[in-house]
Amino acid sequence: MKSFYPPERTLMGPGPSDVNPRVLAAMARPTIGHLDPEFVRMMDEVKQLLQYAFCTSNEMTLAVSAPGSAGMECCFVNLVEPGDKVVVAQNGVFGGRMKENVERAGGTAVMVEHTWGAPVDPGRVEEALKANPDAKIVAFVHAETSTGALSDAKTLVKLAHDHGCLVIVDAVTSLAGVELRVDEWGIDAIYSGTQKCLSAPPGLSPVSFAPSALDKIKARKTKVQSWFLDLQLVMAYWGGETKRAYHHTAPINTLYGLHEALVVLEEEGLEKSWTRHAHNHAALREGFEAMGLNFVVEAKSRLPQLNAVSVPDGVDEAAVRSRLLNEFNLEIGAGLGAMAGKIWRVGLMGHASNTTNVLFCLGAMDAVLGAMNAPIRPGAAVGRAREYYRAK
Amino acid sequence: MKSFYPPERTLMGPGPSDVNPRVLAAMARPTIGHLDPEFVRMMDEVKQLLQYAFCTSNEMTLAVSAPGSAGMECCFVNLVEPGDKVVVAQNGVFGGRMKENVERAGGTAVMVEHTWGAPVDPGRVEEALKANPDAKIVAFVHAETSTGALSDAKTLVKLAHDHGCLVIVDAVTSLAGVELRVDEWGIDAIYSGTQKCLSAPPGLSPVSFAPSALDKIKARKTKVQSWFLDLQLVMAYWGGETKRAYHHTAPINTLYGLHEALVVLEEEGLEKSWTRHAHNHAALREGFEAMGLNFVVEAKSRLPQLNAVSVPDGVDEAAVRSRLLNEFNLEIGAGLGAMAGKIWRVGLMGHASNTTNVLFCLGAMDAVLGAMNAPIRPGAAVGRAREYYRAK
Repeated sequence: MKSFYPPERTLMGPGPSDVNPRVLAAMARPTIGHLDPEFVRMMDEVKQLLQYAFCTSNEMTLAVSAPGSAGMECCFVNLVEPGDKVVVAQNGVFGGRMKENVERAGGTAVMVEHTWGAPVDPGRVEEALKANPDAKIVAFVHAETSTGALSDAKTLVKLAHDHGCLVIVDAVTSLAGVELRVDEWGIDAIYSGTQKCLSAPPGLSPVSFAPSALDKIKARKTKVQSWFLDLQLVMAYWGGETKRAYHHTAPINTLYGLHEALVVLEEEGLEKSWTRHAHNHAALREGFEAMGLNFVVEAKSRLPQLNAVSVPDGVDEAAVRSRLLNEFNLEIGAGLGAMAGKIWRVGLMGHASNTTNVLFCLGAMDAVLGAMNAPIRPGAAVGRAREYYRAK
Repeated sequence: MKSFYPPERTLMGPGPSDVNPRVLAAMARPTIGHLDPEFVRMMDEVKQLLQYAFCTSNEMTLAVSAPGSAGMECCFVNLVEPGDKVVVAQNGVFGGRMKENVERAGGTAVMVEHTWGAPVDPGRVEEALKANPDAKIVAFVHAETSTGALSDAKTLVKLAHDHGCLVIVDAVTSLAGVELRVDEWGIDAIYSGTQKCLSAPPGLSPVSFAPSALDKIKARKTKVQSWFLDLQLVMAYWGGETKRAYHHTAPINTLYGLHEALVVLEEEGLEKSWTRHAHNHAALREGFEAMGLNFVVEAKSRLPQLNAVSVPDGVDEAAVRSRLLNEFNLEIGAGLGAMAGKIWRVGLMGHASNTTNVLFCLGAMDAVLGAMNAPIRPGAAVGRAREYYRAK
């Protein structure tokens, strides 16, 4: 068996996104011990940088040592006790995964189902809360990666609190890509991923828990069902009130990568990162509209970092993605679940949200769709996006 | 906040071990998509290479997307159903963690406690099996990382099978460091880590499940309590009978690292790796004995890759480790749990199991202990080890 040399792709799917070369370089630095004083110092910096990215002063802010799905599970297994009722607003794949998590933790999920592609409707969540006064938690996805819909987290959190519930927010795709203010909005528990708008390799899940969430965890009558994700054990390693205790061996080099990605974010500035995502999204949108592609999500709820468009009639969506990958080394995403075969998901996340990628992607899609005689207006997209950039 | 540049340590603790520069270089290769055909091809190779390392043809052989502790949890949450009785042989820290896992999965742990530092006693396990004819699983640690004791896995597996039990084996520290034959010995489920004798960065846990284990999983009456670690879902992503389905985003770059580490192992040859570990251990042992340090574990059960020695009377063990780290950039391990403050753990794992490290470590420990007026015989260790190598 031989060494593996991956092709150099441009990653414009739903994540992983293109990783900044500075972050890749950090991944290759010498491994040191997970209890080495220098490593512990770096972990403290990661915590501070994550607090910056989440806009929080929560002490319980850290990176779970596994991908975003484990961050989701970390929130649910710690906060949901057997018998707890959880209102889950579902508007895509990941709300369904939340339901699985609630049920596997012994809770009852009250599902508030939405059309895929729509944002979560606060009115419908309120109805569910009124009908379930014993609900303890509200959970929703801030930025639905499967459809590209952004929900109004601030309003939903206030609503949940008004009904005496804690909230769990999925910010896997939103963190660093759109406005997200954990403390100001009062979010109790939140999880994210590293491979979206932070543009670090996957393998870690940033999480943050407010004191309100910790109070519920400390009052648990049963042990957390996962030893690996038991927050009180994990926190003993990440520091806090007590001396650092060995819990598990952290993914050391991946943490180097996350640290560097967060340093890059701080250098740019969080709000500037949000603006850049919005700006490149606008250029891509101009191009897609010139081409005649239709967005899945209505304009006011579109995620700038994840652009879902409908596959034109009669076009073999998988064949388009294959040609983009094979002829352009360009990855865009397919639809998931109910959206499979019907949409493409074009990511402009983190380091990948830039002018070059927007123009390259529009040109590549224009060429491939044109060659396949798809019902689009060929030849207009790149020019339109370039005009947008010039005008700005 | 600035970029983080770790110091260059020599890692001779209980893991992580020194990572081969080839593996570090692999970590920094461009990230590609977790469903990219090239990535999928690499995952197939990782599976084949893990089958080689585990000496198995088990189809269900893969790397869990999180460190060894999650691999342990993956085995227990999939195999233990509520009410199941599990005989756990404990002879160190990690047997205790198994107990936690059994109980959090709703099972009952029948603990067979051993003196720390001793190998698991098949006679005592047999007694427990006779006393608990309803036991369904036997679990033990092949190579106890907290004490350096090697247990006779082959005998223990046969014993468990004779009593109608499946076995779960912790091979976190044993894989690639000592003889381990999953198929020949009939191991039903096994987990390991990447940061020990494979010398890759931490963040993944190689696991393998025999058809016998899969039968029990398929016959479960309840859902696996962890969505993230549910083997039937994970396997849909790692391939097998069906088309690859998205489950979670794998730690892509860390998998590049594991792939390269396994290629390095295959180039050397598994049995040669075992021999190298034994050889360097013998040299270190000669040195330690010349110095007057005593091993915790009796000679016939010592792990070559983890050498636990007692701290001499009156010596401040933490001060010795600090001086080794600060003056020599050398990391050795402290004791865990009941062994804290009483022992050092000197690892010779994977890439770190080499002549240079043995001689360097002996020289450094000799110098530091000598300078602290510890009751040792100074000046003899390095020469003795060098003689051992010359004679070979």
